[in-house]
Amino acid sequence: MNLKTKIQHIDAVKPIIVLNLEDAKELGVHPSDRVKISSNGKTAIAIVNTTTKSVNEGEIGVFDEVERELSLKDGDVVSLQIANRPKSLMFIRKKMDGLKLNDTEIRTIVQDIVDDNLSDIETTAFVVSSYMRPYEMDETVSLANAMVDTGETLDFGDNVVDKHCIGGVAGNRTTMLLVPILAAAGLTMPKTSSRAITSASGTADTMEVLSGVSFKPDEIKEIVNKTGGCIVWSGALNLAPADDKIIKVRYPLSLDPKSQLLASIMSKKKSVGSNYLIVDIPVGKGAKIKKWEEGKALAYDFVNVGKNMNIVVKCLITDGNFPIGRGIGPSLEAVDVLLALGNKGPRDLINKALDMAAAGLELAGKTDGRVIAEKILHLGKAKQKMKEIIEAQGGNSGVKLSDIPIGDKTYIVKSERKGSVRRIDNKFINMIARAAGAPKDAGAGIYLHVGGGDNIKIKDPLFTIYSEHERKLDNAIELTNKLKPVRIGGVILEEIG
Amino acid sequence: MNLKTKIQHIDAVKPIIVLNLEDAKELGVHPSDRVKISSNGKTAIAIVNTTTKSVNEGEIGVFDEVERELSLKDGDVVSLQIANRPKSLMFIRKKMDGLKLNDTEIRTIVQDIVDDNLSDIETTAFVVSSYMRPYEMDETVSLANAMVDTGETLDFGDNVVDKHCIGGVAGNRTTMLLVPILAAAGLTMPKTSSRAITSASGTADTMEVLSGVSFKPDEIKEIVNKTGGCIVWSGALNLAPADDKIIKVRYPLSLDPKSQLLASIMSKKKSVGSNYLIVDIPVGKGAKIKKWEEGKALAYDFVNVGKNMNIVVKCLITDGNFPIGRGIGPSLEAVDVLLALGNKGPRDLINKALDMAAAGLELAGKTDGRVIAEKILHLGKAKQKMKEIIEAQGGNSGVKLSDIPIGDKTYIVKSERKGSVRRIDNKFINMIARAAGAPKDAGAGIYLHVGGGDNIKIKDPLFTIYSEHERKLDNAIELTNKLKPVRIGGVILEEIG
Repeated sequence: MNLKTKIQHIDAVKPIIVLNLEDAKELGVHPSDRVKISSNGKTAIAIVNTTTKSVNEGEIGVFDEVERELSLKDGDVVSLQIANRPKSLMFIRKKMDGLKLNDTEIRTIVQDIVDDNLSDIETTAFVVSSYMRPYEMDETVSLANAMVDTGETLDFGDNVVDKHCIGGVAGNRTTMLLVPILAAAGLTMPKTSSRAITSASGTADTMEVLSGVSFKPDEIKEIVNKTGGCIVWSGALNLAPADDKIIKVRYPLSLDPKSQLLASIMSKKKSVGSNYLIVDIPVGKGAKIKKWEEGKALAYDFVNVGKNMNIVVKCLITDGNFPIGRGIGPSLEAVDVLLALGNKGPRDLINKALDMAAAGLELAGKTDGRVIAEKILHLGKAKQKMKEIIEAQGGNSGVKLSDIPIGDKTYIVKSERKGSVRRIDNKFINMIARAAGAPKDAGAGIYLHVGGGDNIKIKDPLFTIYSEHERKLDNAIELTNKLKPVRIGGVILEEIG
Repeated sequence: MNLKTKIQHIDAVKPIIVLNLEDAKELGVHPSDRVKISSNGKTAIAIVNTTTKSVNEGEIGVFDEVERELSLKDGDVVSLQIANRPKSLMFIRKKMDGLKLNDTEIRTIVQDIVDDNLSDIETTAFVVSSYMRPYEMDETVSLANAMVDTGETLDFGDNVVDKHCIGGVAGNRTTMLLVPILAAAGLTMPKTSSRAITSASGTADTMEVLSGVSFKPDEIKEIVNKTGGCIVWSGALNLAPADDKIIKVRYPLSLDPKSQLLASIMSKKKSVGSNYLIVDIPVGKGAKIKKWEEGKALAYDFVNVGKNMNIVVKCLITDGNFPIGRGIGPSLEAVDVLLALGNKGPRDLINKALDMAAAGLELAGKTDGRVIAEKILHLGKAKQKMKEIIEAQGGNSGVKLSDIPIGDKTYIVKSERKGSVRRIDNKFINMIARAAGAPKDAGAGIYLHVGGGDNIKIKDPLFTIYSEHERKLDNAIELTNKLKPVRIGGVILEEIG
C-alpha cells in the first residue's frame, strides 16, 4: 500500500505511525500491529495507531522517530507492508504463562525495550509478569547482564569499588564522604547517582550544589583518571538504558519486582566496571524496607547475583528509623557534607560513612579498614580529595559554607511536649522538605535540631524549615501540623487508675 | 501553579496534559501522576506527560478530552494542583499481589476504565494480573455485572433468546438463520454481532451485504418491536463499553483471560436483556479451542456464570475441524444464507442452525424444538421473517442472489492428489480469504467445492478464490501454495517394505 506522508510533529520516543481506519482495514492491521515502511531504499518498522479524523485515507501520519529514521518530508510517498510482531512478545507471553525464560529470551526482550520496539502495553506486560512470577537467580543474572550489554560501559581496571543505598532515609549523604575517603585510600570509585524521585534530594541533586554532575562517558573517564573518583548523575549517561525505560512503567504501578530491582542496580554497577560493592540496606518503620528479615533476604540476593556477575558484594543492614545527618534538601545536605569532611558535621553521618568506607577497604583486601578511613578523614585527605573532585567536575574547590545559599524564609518547629525523641519519620520529613521546595529549589529543606533518643523540653526547637518562597513555606508548615514527623515519647507510656 | 493553555489538537481518548519538565519538577509530579486542573469554576482530573520541547515553561499542553471538558482556548490561564491517583490502582495492585477482589473493587476498576481514567499502562496491569491470577466465579460475575451497569441496556421482556459463538470456524453464519427462525417462532432475538478481527468476515460484515447494521438503541428497539429480531453491529452501541477498552489491551498481547472472556460475552448478553443463551463452542484442530476437555470446562463456566446472572445457558460443543457452509467472506456467506433460507444452501450450515434453533426453543420451554424449527424453515417462514428484518434494517427485502456482487477475479484451486478430504484448516482458509480482500472488499473470499470426507480425484476443484483486485488475487494464490489449507489423505497412510 502506498501512502502520502503527513508529518505529525509528535515525539513519542517509540516509532509510531497513524493510519486512517479505512486504510488500516484495507491493509488488515489493527492498533499495536507492526508495519514495515519503505521509502527511498530505507525501511523502518513502526507501531500502528488508527484514527478516523486526524489522518485521511491515503495518508500516513508519521511521528518524529520514523520521520528521522527515514528522513521523511510532508507529502513523501512511502510503501507499507504488514510486519511481524517482535519475538519478544512470545517470550513475554511465556512469562505470563508462568514459565521460566532463558538467557536469549531475556536478552531479546531487553534489546527490544532499549530499541523502543515495544509499546507501553507490551512493556507493562513484561514488568507485571516479572512481578507476579518472581525470577529465579539465573533469570535475574541474565536480565542484569542484558541491561549491561545494551548500554554504555566504562573500564577503570581492577580496584573499582562502588556503593548503593536501597533508599528511604532522609539526608543520608554517605556517598559524598565515601567517594573522597576511598579515592584518597587509592581505590577507584566512579560513582553514578540518581536525582530525587520522591525524596527531598538525591545524591546527584546535592552534589550539584557544589559542582556539575552531567558528564559524557569520556569526561567521566578523565575526571576519574585524574582524581580516582567522581560523583555524577547517572541519568546523563547511557548506562543500562533498559532500566530507565522499565522504571517509566514501574513508577505508575508502584511496582518493584525484586528481580528488576536487583538487575537494575547490579547492571549499573557492572557498567562502570565495579569489582566491589557495598550495599546500604536501611531497615525501619519509615524506610523502604520495614522488616529485618526482608532486608536480610535482599542482602543474600545481592551477594548471590554479585557472585554470578563477578562483583564481590557486602551488604550492611542499617538503622532506617531516623534520618542520617541534620540537613534535608540539596544545599542543607551539602553543608552537612562539607562540615563532615572537616570532621565537624553530624556524628551519625560521619560514623556511618566511616563504617561503610571500612567495609569497602576490607572488600578490596585491606585490613583495619576503619582505622585507615578515620585517618584519611582526620588528616584532611578526604577533604583534599573532595576538592579535587569538585574542581574536576567544574565546581569551586574553595567553596565555603557561606557560599551555599539557603532559603531565607524560615520557620522553627517546636516541641509541644517534653520527653525523648522516639522516631523521626523519614517519609514525612521528605514530604515536608519537598513542600518547602526541595529538590527543585536547592536552598529549601529542613534542618533537624534533634536526633533519636535526645531528651527535650516543651518548646525546644525540633527542626527549622527553610524555603525560598513564602507560599511554599506555608505549605510546608501546614503539612508539618498535619503529619507531626517527630514523635516524642514520655518515660511513662500510660497511666491507669 | 498557574499555566497558560496550549491546545495540542490530539485526541488521545484519555484526559492527558503535557507539562514542561521544569514545571513538573516544580509541582513535584512525574509522568502518569494525576493533576487537578481548574478553570472558570470547572475542574478536571488529567494524567501528566512531560516534555522538554513541545511545551514551554509556564505552559500546559492540553489534549482534546481536557480541552472539551473545561472548554479551554489557547492562552487561557488554568490552575494546577497535585491530585490523588484513582483508587483503582490500589485494587489492581491487590490483584497483582495475588489477592481476590470484591464486588466494589471490581466495579471501581471497571468504572475507571469506562471513564478513561486509567492509562494504557494501568489497564494493562489489570488485564495481565487477571490473566495470571484467574478469577473465582464471584469475581467473574462481579466483572460481568459491572460491565453491564457501566453501559447502555435494553429491555425486551421475558422471551429474549441470544446466541454466541466462541469462534474460529470459517463461514459458520448460523446467526443469520437462527434469528429469523426463532423470531418466526415467537421468541425475541435482539442479536448484536461483531465485525471480523482476524477472520474473513464477522456476522456484522456479512449482514451488511444485505442491510444496514449500525443503529442507535432506540432504532434497535423499533426494529425488534416490529420484527421480533435484529442482526446489528455491537460496535455502534454502547453495550458494556468497558469490554472494548479492555480488548484494546488484550489484542496486542494475544491475551484471553477466561474471566474477561466470560464477563465480556455474558455482559453483552445481559445488556440486551437476554433470558436464554445458546453458546456454540467449536472444538478442533483449526478452531480456537483445540481440546474437548477445554471446551467442556468452558461450557460449565458459561452455565455457572449464567446462573449467577439469571441467564439460562445451554452450550453446544460442535465440530471445529472444518468450515461450516461453502462461502467464506461477506458476500459469499450472504449467498449461502439466502440459499439456506430457501432450504437450498449447504446442508452443514442448515443442520447446525436447526440444531441450535431447537436448543433455543427448548430453553424457552417448547418441546420438539427441531421439528418446530424445520417446519419454520421449510414453510418459508424464516425467509419471510428475514425479509422483514432486512427491510426494518434499511435493506432491500427483495434481494436476489444475482444482486450480490462477487469479485470478478477468480482462481480455482485444484487437488494435486486423490483421496478423501481429511481437514480444511479454518485459520488458513480465513488467512487466504483475507489476502484476497475480505472483509474490507465484501465480494472477496473463498467458495469451497468440497467438504470433510468427500472423495476426490486428482485435479478436482477444491475451492475458488474470488477477489476484486488482481494483485490481491495473486497474494491469495501465493498464500494458498504456501499454506495448503485442504488436507487430502489416501486410504493407505503408509507403505512399508
